[in-house]
Amino acid sequence: MVNQKMYLLGSAPSEIREIFSYGLARKAQIGADRVFDFSLGNPNVPAPDAVRDAIVSLTELPPQQLHGYTPAQGLPSTRQAIAASISRRFGVEAKADSIYLTVGAAASLDISLTALCDPGDEVIVIAPYFPEYKMWIEARECTCVEVLTRQDDFQLDLPAIEAAITHRTKAIIINSPNNPVGSVYPREALQLLARVLESKQREYDAAIYLISDEPYREIAYAGIEVPYIPCLYPNTIVCYSYSKSLSLPGERIGYIYVSERVQDAHRVYAAVCGAGRALGFVCAPALFQRVIERCVDVPSDVEAYAENRRLLTEGLSRLGYEYVEPQGAFYLWVKALEPDAEAFAARAKAHEILLVASDGFGTKGWARIGYCVSRDTIVDSMPAFADLMAEYRRLDSQQPAGV
Amino acid sequence: MVNQKMYLLGSAPSEIREIFSYGLARKAQIGADRVFDFSLGNPNVPAPDAVRDAIVSLTELPPQQLHGYTPAQGLPSTRQAIAASISRRFGVEAKADSIYLTVGAAASLDISLTALCDPGDEVIVIAPYFPEYKMWIEARECTCVEVLTRQDDFQLDLPAIEAAITHRTKAIIINSPNNPVGSVYPREALQLLARVLESKQREYDAAIYLISDEPYREIAYAGIEVPYIPCLYPNTIVCYSYSKSLSLPGERIGYIYVSERVQDAHRVYAAVCGAGRALGFVCAPALFQRVIERCVDVPSDVEAYAENRRLLTEGLSRLGYEYVEPQGAFYLWVKALEPDAEAFAARAKAHEILLVASDGFGTKGWARIGYCVSRDTIVDSMPAFADLMAEYRRLDSQQPAGV
Repeated sequence: MVNQKMYLLGSAPSEIREIFSYGLARKAQIGADRVFDFSLGNPNVPAPDAVRDAIVSLTELPPQQLHGYTPAQGLPSTRQAIAASISRRFGVEAKADSIYLTVGAAASLDISLTALCDPGDEVIVIAPYFPEYKMWIEARECTCVEVLTRQDDFQLDLPAIEAAITHRTKAIIINSPNNPVGSVYPREALQLLARVLESKQREYDAAIYLISDEPYREIAYAGIEVPYIPCLYPNTIVCYSYSKSLSLPGERIGYIYVSERVQDAHRVYAAVCGAGRALGFVCAPALFQRVIERCVDVPSDVEAYAENRRLLTEGLSRLGYEYVEPQGAFYLWVKALEPDAEAFAARAKAHEILLVASDGFGTKGWARIGYCVSRDTIVDSMPAFADLMAEYRRLDSQQPAGV
Repeated sequence: MVNQKMYLLGSAPSEIREIFSYGLARKAQIGADRVFDFSLGNPNVPAPDAVRDAIVSLTELPPQQLHGYTPAQGLPSTRQAIAASISRRFGVEAKADSIYLTVGAAASLDISLTALCDPGDEVIVIAPYFPEYKMWIEARECTCVEVLTRQDDFQLDLPAIEAAITHRTKAIIINSPNNPVGSVYPREALQLLARVLESKQREYDAAIYLISDEPYREIAYAGIEVPYIPCLYPNTIVCYSYSKSLSLPGERIGYIYVSERVQDAHRVYAAVCGAGRALGFVCAPALFQRVIERCVDVPSDVEAYAENRRLLTEGLSRLGYEYVEPQGAFYLWVKALEPDAEAFAARAKAHEILLVASDGFGTKGWARIGYCVSRDTIVDSMPAFADLMAEYRRLDSQQPAGV
């Protein structure tokens, strides 16, 4: 009697949710320090002190002002602060009226897809990818077209992207720094992507939007450039969230930036406002709009993740694991020690290592290790990773030769 | 090239937004104390001190805990606190697992409609009504079926509701205390409504859900009972928001309560979780989830609104205005002094009185006065209301007799 699709979505088991629940139960059972939970993307780096200072100081405002409705698209002063920060950092001329504040990345993406797409449109995602992309695309009655990355370095496969574009392609979602791989797309690859998209726009005489999902923009390691995509491809819509950059995942605060270079940018921005209204996403939480205004240029603590990355990659290298060297975000994409990644994750679990098999991200044979955890978790997990490797070596040595 | 419906929604003029902007500009022009802006529902009563105390004290928690992700449906402890409060107050046995925390009333309603409805379903609304109801219903490709209240007292017209129910009716939205009328539906009327809905459920052998939109539940004046609808009609889904009760409209925090008495309540709750996921409404803002947990039983300051009501109704009575005596919320539904409510609002505006014509609420000939304003605004507006009435008396006296 209820909507069957929604019932199925709400009752479907979620792998990450199940691992999370298992982790909590297992920690209660054998002790938190004996379970190595790498399954989540919840930052372990605390929000900067500036956030607490801003909250406490804001509570001195009159409550009607502090907690009152803001305009649907957000406070003008917060949008202005974000636009000014974007302009300063990336050399564009972002305007407050191009920014729409949202309740985090999920809202940003769902609003953008709703604003742009009609039923039957195609949206390209680059696999491996955050699994909710597909769900949001299909909820709009659009087709999620998965294009695999190159399988050696998990970078963009431009010929494959070009081949996937049809006259129904409305958008492509790019996520760099990437969840789950930890890769960052270099400038040259993005320039080539822009060239492909521009040529296909001309061929089909229709806009193809690039939705740049950027919650990990600030988490990039020394020497790695994260190019600003609106500078490379005009029809870009940026979906940003402060969940990772300021360690505020629970507060759900982010924004959509419709680049001024987007064709008919005013129409696209109006559609974003309309989609926000239709979905009920108006007036992002007011206190955190003001926190962001005050903290818009507070740097992210990338050093903590860099140290975790060093510990984890050095440790796993020594043990003989293969992985993609992370350039950003806080995920290590490690090769499963057998073709079936789910079976690999199950064996890891028996060693108290919780990680996520690659299948849910649209790829076979790998696993995601989220290293937004304490240093101790990484150091203490090494014997378990060693045992896991030893187990596979034993298994291999038992295989008859030539099989 | 964007979604045309979303573009139209985002670029359509909104009467309330336009009055609001006009009010700001006019105040800057002639002085804030000379413009009597009754157009909004932004509470002037400050959030209780307990809210500020909770925020400040919560900032002492470790930031990773305070600002981290919560489960999609909200913190178990917050859901438990809300369920316990509902159980204590209304004598039901609400469970934490029946509560889904949301980013405010708009989210609650959109999630509920998405969870329940399939395209082509009909949803009944009682006119006059909050105009976004229709927009959300139509965004789900459902039909918004408007049933007028009785035109003498703006109470439920049960025969009209009964006549409007078809085999396609999936839900009816009830809003008591009511925006824009300020009425509260008495127990007997709700019991009769429940009887009608139950009989129609049997007739069509299908569930008809009652969505009870309750942001004004706590704002009811002395002696007025606001019956708890899940006690009267099993298939009830409560959409609650703390926007008005705790004066937190900008913080977007509320919940959906799927009554345990709903048929197949587990399926309906699962569909709510699925709709939250599909729409991107997961994990309501974490800090305010914790604020609500601590403030769940903090009373609303109804006295301030009661005093405004007294001043406004006594003043307008003396001047000869007709209105519906408000029993709850903070709106006065006043009869326009000419049949065309838009023309009446325009004349009021010329006297610096900003109010909202009834047309946007689905009814002709009335206007909404939001009295969630300062006492001074009400007192100082009386000469302007007197002048407005005098203007209409002059106009009437100029009409030729018998016309």
